[in-house]
Amino acid sequence: MDLKTSPLAIPFPAMPQIDGVTLRVARAGYRDWGRCDLTYAELAEGTAVAGVFTQNVCSSSEVELGREQVKAGLARALIVNAGNSNAFTGFRGREAVEQIMAQVSGHLACPADQVFVSSTGVIGVPLPMDKARDGVDAAIASQPCGWEEAAQAIGTTDTFPKGAMAQAVVGGKTVTLCGIIKGSGMIAPDMATMLGYIFTDAAVTPGFLQECLSAANLKTYSCITVDSDTSTSDTVLAFATGKAGNTPLTGSASAGADAFCAALEDVCRQLAHLVVRDGEGAQKFIAVNVSGAVSDDSARRIGLAVANSPLVKTAIAGEDANWGRIVMAVGKAGEPADRDTLSIGFGGIWAAKNGLPLADYDEAPVTAHLKSRDIAIEVDIGLGDGRATVWTCDLTHGYISINADYRS
Amino acid sequence: MDLKTSPLAIPFPAMPQIDGVTLRVARAGYRDWGRCDLTYAELAEGTAVAGVFTQNVCSSSEVELGREQVKAGLARALIVNAGNSNAFTGFRGREAVEQIMAQVSGHLACPADQVFVSSTGVIGVPLPMDKARDGVDAAIASQPCGWEEAAQAIGTTDTFPKGAMAQAVVGGKTVTLCGIIKGSGMIAPDMATMLGYIFTDAAVTPGFLQECLSAANLKTYSCITVDSDTSTSDTVLAFATGKAGNTPLTGSASAGADAFCAALEDVCRQLAHLVVRDGEGAQKFIAVNVSGAVSDDSARRIGLAVANSPLVKTAIAGEDANWGRIVMAVGKAGEPADRDTLSIGFGGIWAAKNGLPLADYDEAPVTAHLKSRDIAIEVDIGLGDGRATVWTCDLTHGYISINADYRS
Repeated sequence: MDLKTSPLAIPFPAMPQIDGVTLRVARAGYRDWGRCDLTYAELAEGTAVAGVFTQNVCSSSEVELGREQVKAGLARALIVNAGNSNAFTGFRGREAVEQIMAQVSGHLACPADQVFVSSTGVIGVPLPMDKARDGVDAAIASQPCGWEEAAQAIGTTDTFPKGAMAQAVVGGKTVTLCGIIKGSGMIAPDMATMLGYIFTDAAVTPGFLQECLSAANLKTYSCITVDSDTSTSDTVLAFATGKAGNTPLTGSASAGADAFCAALEDVCRQLAHLVVRDGEGAQKFIAVNVSGAVSDDSARRIGLAVANSPLVKTAIAGEDANWGRIVMAVGKAGEPADRDTLSIGFGGIWAAKNGLPLADYDEAPVTAHLKSRDIAIEVDIGLGDGRATVWTCDLTHGYISINADYRS
Repeated sequence: MDLKTSPLAIPFPAMPQIDGVTLRVARAGYRDWGRCDLTYAELAEGTAVAGVFTQNVCSSSEVELGREQVKAGLARALIVNAGNSNAFTGFRGREAVEQIMAQVSGHLACPADQVFVSSTGVIGVPLPMDKARDGVDAAIASQPCGWEEAAQAIGTTDTFPKGAMAQAVVGGKTVTLCGIIKGSGMIAPDMATMLGYIFTDAAVTPGFLQECLSAANLKTYSCITVDSDTSTSDTVLAFATGKAGNTPLTGSASAGADAFCAALEDVCRQLAHLVVRDGEGAQKFIAVNVSGAVSDDSARRIGLAVANSPLVKTAIAGEDANWGRIVMAVGKAGEPADRDTLSIGFGGIWAAKNGLPLADYDEAPVTAHLKSRDIAIEVDIGLGDGRATVWTCDLTHGYISINADYRS
């Protein structure tokens, strides 16, 4: 099927090179499509790595191996296969990943466990080892490419390439962070999202990089949902080449650590938003702002219950200020809430306060807000100080068409 | 909007009168529709009652009061309002319920807390007290009616009236159970479903009736889902008039207790299935059969994760044997599962066993099965003896049309 570009798409930003990172793409032909579908990032010696991965217990060999590899903290290469997730393929799937690791580590003369592999696409078909081998050879032999080409090559049902950047000043040195991501459906990250990669020239120890990434993840990837379905392959990796020459960041007390963490969270949030903006069938980008919960984590869970509710998502698709459905979703979240302290609003305008519809509620400005592309839902629980924002998209005929009308 | 009758509808069955139960309906006019929308069931003195209610913490006054009322164990009347759920309406909603309780208890000269009230429909609009008063008066003055009329009158977006019956022999006496139910969207019961009522002439103590109903609920209403959205009004009540003349059932050791419980579970299962068959936009009725889980409860949770997955539901709508999506849903359920012992099948034919696609998998008979109206998905976890069946429907353009294309 031919997918139209999402109406919520954002043009690919200008993103500089990161010293110590060389990108290449090739056509492995994992599917019958005339495009590059294998991405190879070569990383400078000594590059620190951190990662967050899916909690889905049926995760792929790539995820199983990656979880182990990040513990050692060093990376020399990343290979991303698009079109085949290699998930639920047993020992044959694992052999394919190990072949790629051996092939690239042979080329770079590095330990095999410094080669990270991700795969995305159909579940249940072992990654074809011949196509992978020829694809890696072709990538190694090819000219380096830019961020947008790499972002295109890691995509599957994505309708636009997704990238984001940020900079921070760390101990007098400017460090740069560039990220690319893919994802559109099967998006309900549980400590990670589809496939996302952030590269920085900052010098950061693996331990602190992991600390920053895990913290950023909690407020970004773990706060988005398209369809409540958690992928078997979700992976986000952060690579720090250290080429910026800053005094290495070793912990939150290091000079510039706050600025680096904020920049990392900024890139992660931008990337997470792009995935929602490419949500299957999405016509509207929705921010669910929850306040007054008993904790931030409780607020996030309530926000996800609202953002995952088919009845809320279809109401927004229909531009219908149906706040009763939001009450329902808050009530089913399984978190502390009290009907009589609950308030609901849209775009900054309250429709109900403290458990009652507002007597002077004027629906006209709310209706005008709901006609826009970017929608805000406000939920105040009225019990505490916990707050969170969760992002999602509406549920439309487009989602059904993509997932039911066409055979996968 | 004018809803077409679900293609999965079943004709209303022949159901006998229950001695001690008199049904009446009236037009309260809660919405601008030319149909009866208030149902009144008068119950013989001494009728035992049991109930299960929504776990949604934003539940209605009807549900709050009902939870308390069943503790006393006696019922003389049931009033069901359709078109307005009276949920999220604060003290004004509660006043409306208390007015109805006072009005009916005055008529029957019984305690007010023996009058049960349910309401279903739009959230956030207090039930109009004048319409309720006039409607109750009209119902009291009207001729008794049959089950099908009552089943019609309790419905809202339902496309067909839903009833079921069963009989059991208890201590030499035949007892009869008749039930009616309504529900189509916002269906993910958590210990209860939308609005369901079961009436029997059996003599049963309130305590044992509650025990039987709670047990039946766990295997029936708590095993269905249409859209994962849990209503604020879910209520199932069972009323036992005792007019069959059997020696009262007081516990599981009573003669005939097993037969009565089995008949009650049978009626509950039939009613639960009818709600799924009227699921918004449903084209296919899906049974998810989970075996090999570590416990029955774990199996039920895994079944619900599969049945709530938009990607699984759209795959079935598309008649696509996409078992990879089922693997994903099992993996995200948060229950013990192991990719390498997991098996997936459709209609009794395995597609994958022990974590691998079957080498000799023949998709042709599976494709033929998926073209039918009644679909079976088999999931074997391969870890234990826990099993459960969960029922749902597919996710189609019809669901989006009902919930997004039309304003509520």
